[in-house]
Amino acid sequence: MTKVVTVKRRALAANEERAERLRARFAASGTLVANLISSPGSGKTTLLEATVRALEGELTTAVIEGDVATENDADRIRALGVPAHQILTGGACHLDARLVETGIEDGGLPEVDILFIENVGNLVCPAEFDTGAIKSAMILSVPEGDDKPLKYPLMFTVCDVLLVNKIDYLELSDFDMEAMRERVLRLNPDIRIFEICAKTGEGVDEWAAWLSREATSFIRG
Amino acid sequence: MTKVVTVKRRALAANEERAERLRARFAASGTLVANLISSPGSGKTTLLEATVRALEGELTTAVIEGDVATENDADRIRALGVPAHQILTGGACHLDARLVETGIEDGGLPEVDILFIENVGNLVCPAEFDTGAIKSAMILSVPEGDDKPLKYPLMFTVCDVLLVNKIDYLELSDFDMEAMRERVLRLNPDIRIFEICAKTGEGVDEWAAWLSREATSFIRG
Repeated sequence: MTKVVTVKRRALAANEERAERLRARFAASGTLVANLISSPGSGKTTLLEATVRALEGELTTAVIEGDVATENDADRIRALGVPAHQILTGGACHLDARLVETGIEDGGLPEVDILFIENVGNLVCPAEFDTGAIKSAMILSVPEGDDKPLKYPLMFTVCDVLLVNKIDYLELSDFDMEAMRERVLRLNPDIRIFEICAKTGEGVDEWAAWLSREATSFIRG
Repeated sequence: MTKVVTVKRRALAANEERAERLRARFAASGTLVANLISSPGSGKTTLLEATVRALEGELTTAVIEGDVATENDADRIRALGVPAHQILTGGACHLDARLVETGIEDGGLPEVDILFIENVGNLVCPAEFDTGAIKSAMILSVPEGDDKPLKYPLMFTVCDVLLVNKIDYLELSDFDMEAMRERVLRLNPDIRIFEICAKTGEGVDEWAAWLSREATSFIRG
């Protein structure tokens, strides 16, 4: 076995400092900032569409989209009447606090109750780079397999919420929900787990209700 | 829209040089080195299992596994009697030429006809970092969606082969195979596309036959 130790502590420390400043700013404005992370194609944007719809009329929302290419995701959110700003990372595989800060400055987004950050599709680096978000939620879709907590443990450890998406694929898959839950809870006993299907909307109300409670208590502070 | 330009040209140039040296070494030994890349959970290891089985008795194979954590993938390959070496990247989101070189030096792998490199599950950085491989193949699984060539264009541009995996999910999915093919061929008109189901073995023989032809002509050189 070959083991590698990466030396990027300084970059991470500078990012952490900036993230703390951002968090203080979000606390001052009473904005719950939620960072959404997953593999490519796990359904982040479809979930965001369902989530902003579920919260409509109750809480105001806006979205910062992180992608390597295309403004497609921001366009999908704007089509729902929700303000969105697209960050194109130019090949970078994750968002960090500086990118989020720049996005907020460039984006002209209104002050809202919940600001969603859709991170670049990647289970590795977004786990290491703090975006300044108040809460982090990851999506694991059923077709990716129940072994992912073993293969990408840091991501499951740093997130507050796990959304198990595409449960409509369970019948075709050998995904073992109980084994997956055990693996995740061993890494992170406090994580909240929701089983959902973003496409059909199944389970999205429970996740939206959780967000709503978190946002309300955050605003009240 | 916020656009970012990353400055990592020097690191990429040094990697490219090392990759060229590795390629010369593989040419001298007549080893076809194939780099497999995909999102987490697209089915790389299951495909590798099916591929080394399909090539058994015809060509000799070995595998270098790249993962952030666990030796599970190397163990799965070894269980088939195929030599495998695990590289644990310690948080790094891609393999590069140096890691592959170190893996070969540490791994004690025998000289074989085809050496597979299973890259870290990620559609971004592995597209930029040359591993020294002779051929690169990417896997896109049906549940990830037909829009991935738009969102991760570099990966589809640099690969020689696209394996569309989990075609057994097509019936439950809105994946548009024709739209996906058009998007990919616009980026990379020379790419070879195989539709497969690594789990059931469907389509794997065509891919293995392609590999076998490539390896044979490479050995004859």
